[in-house]
Amino acid sequence: MDLQAILAKNAAVVDSALQQYLPSPDGPGGHVAEAMRYMLRSGKRLRPLVVRHAARTFGWEGERVLPAACAFELLHSATLIHDDLPCIDDSPLRRGQPSCHVRSDEATAVLAGDALIVAAYAALADQTRVSAADRVVRVIAEFSQAVQELIAGEAADVHGEALPPDAELLEFIHLNKTAALFVAAARTGAILAEAAGSQLETITAYARSLGLLFQITDDILDATGDEASLGKPAGADAAAGKQTYPGVYGLAEAQRRADELRAEATRAAIDLPAEQEFWIALLDLLIERRT
Amino acid sequence: MDLQAILAKNAAVVDSALQQYLPSPDGPGGHVAEAMRYMLRSGKRLRPLVVRHAARTFGWEGERVLPAACAFELLHSATLIHDDLPCIDDSPLRRGQPSCHVRSDEATAVLAGDALIVAAYAALADQTRVSAADRVVRVIAEFSQAVQELIAGEAADVHGEALPPDAELLEFIHLNKTAALFVAAARTGAILAEAAGSQLETITAYARSLGLLFQITDDILDATGDEASLGKPAGADAAAGKQTYPGVYGLAEAQRRADELRAEATRAAIDLPAEQEFWIALLDLLIERRT
Repeated sequence: MDLQAILAKNAAVVDSALQQYLPSPDGPGGHVAEAMRYMLRSGKRLRPLVVRHAARTFGWEGERVLPAACAFELLHSATLIHDDLPCIDDSPLRRGQPSCHVRSDEATAVLAGDALIVAAYAALADQTRVSAADRVVRVIAEFSQAVQELIAGEAADVHGEALPPDAELLEFIHLNKTAALFVAAARTGAILAEAAGSQLETITAYARSLGLLFQITDDILDATGDEASLGKPAGADAAAGKQTYPGVYGLAEAQRRADELRAEATRAAIDLPAEQEFWIALLDLLIERRT
Repeated sequence: MDLQAILAKNAAVVDSALQQYLPSPDGPGGHVAEAMRYMLRSGKRLRPLVVRHAARTFGWEGERVLPAACAFELLHSATLIHDDLPCIDDSPLRRGQPSCHVRSDEATAVLAGDALIVAAYAALADQTRVSAADRVVRVIAEFSQAVQELIAGEAADVHGEALPPDAELLEFIHLNKTAALFVAAARTGAILAEAAGSQLETITAYARSLGLLFQITDDILDATGDEASLGKPAGADAAAGKQTYPGVYGLAEAQRRADELRAEATRAAIDLPAEQEFWIALLDLLIERRT
């Protein structure tokens, strides 16, 4: 399996589809639309990849869930813009380039994040080009619930900076801030492709482990990586006093937990009706990623 | 017609229904949920009133569009929180009380605004308890378009602070920042109540005039009111260099345009199939309002 080729093709398809959900850069409010495009110019499109392959797992072509897949990238980009703001994580760099509020200004970044949330819902509504409206509304409701969890996770992440290492708080942050949106992405693709019952549960369990693995790997990279490979200063999370897995449990235990999550996710992947090889390869990618 | 009694009853019904769309204030992210409740503790609930009476105009009880009506208050509250931020309007007061970011902090205010946008969509999705899913998706798509216009209008409003008075820019701001959401509120109630064709056009025209009248009245109040009645410093918009109707055209012309919009809206109201008296009384309320 050539996962890099799959990633490249996914990114090309998603990038092209994203454009239709962005407002026009012309007119007096056009600088917000321009800031949205700036934020979307890069990124691996991992969450749309999960939506599309969840649909494939249940017999649908990924193309058929492309509007919903775009919604996850639009929402993810919104969270990156707002998280980077001075009042939240105060990150001047994102993927090695100026963050949105540095390139534009804070007002534009706040509004561009808002507009990306709204664009995500416009993309979900557009899924009715392919899917029955009642199924789309179900997806919109689940998506909204996941984004509320994400926001609660981000709020806990900021709040946790002032606190001593706390295992319960760390788990809340990892589940909500990161895993919730991966779970929603997998479930969205699966639900649109009419998965139900125990198979829907299996892909939910896979995505939960994947999301937790993603965040623990992020924490490990923050503790062990360098700025050139991370695209942002190494140790920034630890320096900010954030709750991280190595910070609470130490690096060796973080590595052990990552291995355990990878094993759990692999077991779930094997139980899926198709695409097992893809889902297993995706775990390797997350562990080896550098930005 | 006792509009004050209608307003009070509308506010009670909407306030009670809003609660179900807010995340729990418990847990590590609960301070964001608490900030959402703080922002929603007051307000006239004008946009839900418009949604509910638009439905009544076409033969539906207002109760039947209550989820969609809530969505407009949730979204409106999100825009107030983000507009008050230091990087946008830098307003420490809202309705005579500390703004959300002053009462909590900026990070909480950014996230509470985001969460209110998401809660608005959860409320729209919940409208499927009453309405067919395809009609709800249509409403979600129109709502998303209106909110993009609102954001572009707000962006133009901020941008316009550095510019000399500009009639074209002023019109863009008034149409997008204020009128678009009133138009969407009226259309949402009407579409859910199965209005179509020229009757949908008539209520659209009414709401557009209402929205423009609302903003011009706001501009006039900023130029002529006092802090006690406004709930914020008088002349704040003018002092910030904002594009206002009196600033571009003078106070006498602003008053003349307000009278003209009121006459246009009254003509549209008379053409509606029901609730004419309510829609005409609502115009008086907007002109006489003080906060």
